[in-house]
Amino acid sequence: MSDPINRLQLVFERFPGIGPRQAGRFVQFLLRSSPSLRRELAAAIEDLGGSVRQCPKCKRFYAGTDKLCSICENILRDPSLLAVVAHDTDLAAMERSGAFRGLYYVLGGTVSLATDKHEHLCIGDLAASIADRAREGLHEIILALPANTEGDSTAVRVRDKLEPACAEHDITITTLGRGLSTGSELEYADPDTIQNALRGRK
Amino acid sequence: MSDPINRLQLVFERFPGIGPRQAGRFVQFLLRSSPSLRRELAAAIEDLGGSVRQCPKCKRFYAGTDKLCSICENILRDPSLLAVVAHDTDLAAMERSGAFRGLYYVLGGTVSLATDKHEHLCIGDLAASIADRAREGLHEIILALPANTEGDSTAVRVRDKLEPACAEHDITITTLGRGLSTGSELEYADPDTIQNALRGRK
Amino acid sequence: MSDPINRLQLVFERFPGIGPRQAGRFVQFLLRSSPSLRRELAAAIEDLGGSVRQCPKCKRFYAGTDKLCSICENILRDPSLLAVVAHDTDLAAMERSGAFRGLYYVLGGTVSLATDKHEHLCIGDLAASIADRAREGLHEIILALPANTEGDSTAVRVRDKLEPACAEHDITITTLGRGLSTGSELEYADPDTIQNALRGRK
Amino acid sequence: MSDPINRLQLVFERFPGIGPRQAGRFVQFLLRSSPSLRRELAAAIEDLGGSVRQCPKCKRFYAGTDKLCSICENILRDPSLLAVVAHDTDLAAMERSGAFRGLYYVLGGTVSLATDKHEHLCIGDLAASIADRAREGLHEIILALPANTEGDSTAVRVRDKLEPACAEHDITITTLGRGLSTGSELEYADPDTIQNALRGRK
Repeated sequence: MSDPINRLQLVFERFPGIGPRQAGRFVQFLLRSSPSLRRELAAAIEDLGGSVRQCPKCKRFYAGTDKLCSICENILRDPSLLAVVAHDTDLAAMERSGAFRGLYYVLGGTVSLATDKHEHLCIGDLAASIADRAREGLHEIILALPANTEGDSTAVRVRDKLEPACAEHDITITTLGRGLSTGSELEYADPDTIQNALRGRK
Repeated sequence: MSDPINRLQLVFERFPGIGPRQAGRFVQFLLRSSPSLRRELAAAIEDLGGSVRQCPKCKRFYAGTDKLCSICENILRDPSLLAVVAHDTDLAAMERSGAFRGLYYVLGGTVSLATDKHEHLCIGDLAASIADRAREGLHEIILALPANTEGDSTAVRVRDKLEPACAEHDITITTLGRGLSTGSELEYADPDTIQNALRGRK
Repeated sequence: MSDPINRLQLVFERFPGIGPRQAGRFVQFLLRSSPSLRRELAAAIEDLGGSVRQCPKCKRFYAGTDKLCSICENILRDPSLLAVVAHDTDLAAMERSGAFRGLYYVLGGTVSLATDKHEHLCIGDLAASIADRAREGLHEIILALPANTEGDSTAVRVRDKLEPACAEHDITITTLGRGLSTGSELEYADPDTIQNALRGRK
Repeated sequence: MSDPINRLQLVFERFPGIGPRQAGRFVQFLLRSSPSLRRELAAAIEDLGGSVRQCPKCKRFYAGTDKLCSICENILRDPSLLAVVAHDTDLAAMERSGAFRGLYYVLGGTVSLATDKHEHLCIGDLAASIADRAREGLHEIILALPANTEGDSTAVRVRDKLEPACAEHDITITTLGRGLSTGSELEYADPDTIQNALRGRK
């Protein structure tokens, strides 16, 4: 039987952004915490499987027994716009901005450049739902993906898969505007950003 | 007579981005440098006044005896586009990007928010030159200013001053596109940038 | 019943160095992980309580069924020296340095300056063990505490509690040397460090 | 004749800690400054040669016509202690700390590891002055050098050169104490610092 301290540290090292040193601090923190906190944590982790559902429409995770997540269910959201994002956290950022009133679709990641893998992304489900969504009023799919190579590859892949159905139902596919981000100065902008800012001038 | 060490340190503290500690290091560096390096530096600083000219057309500085700077003089540049920038360094960044083939105009700074001062910006000269530039083919003025509050205030001020002449000569005034800069992810983007990226989608 | 996603996020926010944003990423990571990874993590956390023991002699945590931890049990360690540290991670740093061959005692934290609380530190147990440790040959207790205000307050508190027993058994109490740390330059050293470096010269 | 803008930028690039980009900003700053500021700067740089003296006793630079610098001249300073430092800025840091009341000697740098050059350091002058300083009461020379490899090599070199005279006049040579610097925690300390902190305990 392996050492539970090491075993736990190895699991924490798989957490996003956590290296061996911080994983070790997490273990030490739990060792010196009350048994009740450890039980609470273990129970909350187990509960994720039981009481959390993935929304069948937008693929994001939510707690509860409703059939759809709170956004997909909300009749005040605009069904003519669909933002395709990589992660739940991107969806959260767009919600915080207050600038978007449409619906979302969460791919669950981006194409991996190393492996070109994309089976973990739910692109097929999205393509299969286009006809239904067109009936509900969908007019535009906004690819709200990261402005980097992984995001760009993902956009190409998604566009490929969606284009036939979108053409048939007269749905436009757009991407987010690129250019100077708020607070940035030309002097420090990379050539690509300057080029995008010039192309996107208005 | 004041102490030349302190006096020199105080001048260096006025340099952009230089605090008292680094100003002190500059002085120590010069104290331990050879007299010939100090003479060379002093001479080069004096020479700026003598052999450097400000281009009467775009207001940037250049060395030499030509009537215009190398960009304004270059007949291969496109006179239908004029990029208005805050600093020579912004112009340099745009040149490095290779994305712009038009002409420039250097304001020499931005409106100061603290004082709302703008007399140091050569906006009047630019306004006075619009008729001439229209005759040379000018069709669009691109306000290539920093994506911050100073840049925005400057854009408002420049637009105000240029609009009458531009309307008369059918010249459009545009601003650089804003949105996600290259490499950025939605999750970390500020609400303003997300809003701009959504507005600028295409 | 509260939302298990929020509940789990709140527990992660109590982890050392983790804010709301990263706690949210941990939850998303677990949501998209396999059920087996979640089960493994929950089990490892539960196991901490069952198979991990706190060494009765030095108070650090270890896995196994031995009566003492591997350092306290090691007859090659020098019982004349005892290093009192705040955390298990400090003990690990001293072991990595290879510079210490004595025994340790882990307080489990430092005095909190906000509350002056110190009941969570096992100072009483240490004081009660001095006579036994003297019989085993203890000659010097090294307070190896952080070089900050919390560490200094803790040192005062520990010294107070240990001095009677140490005087009786002729045990010296020392603190780690302070001064320039490796790689540092005088120019950037704080006045306190310079003072300590001058006092500690040899 | 070379371009004065480029020429000035190249001189600024030789300043400590200044790269091409910041050197370019300095030139732009001066181009847009008033001619009087440029004249003031050039004059202050030229003046360094004329009105600044190097103290014959401690080798630091000062402005004025006094024979010695203000510290060497100050009869309240303790002549029994001499701190040997690498740079004027180290001397300034020690003065700010208020922890030293002795005299200084500024080497003007450290031994270069790449070249093992040390002729630029005024070690010979210091060695030659030991007899005189002993007569004034010197008892201890403190090598207050950086806690890095260059500093350590310099200390070895200085000690070598001074030891004969120091032995003859019963002068001790010490180095600054090393250990935990103020604010640092054991967990993040390098092995060398932990070793020094253990050796320097008291």
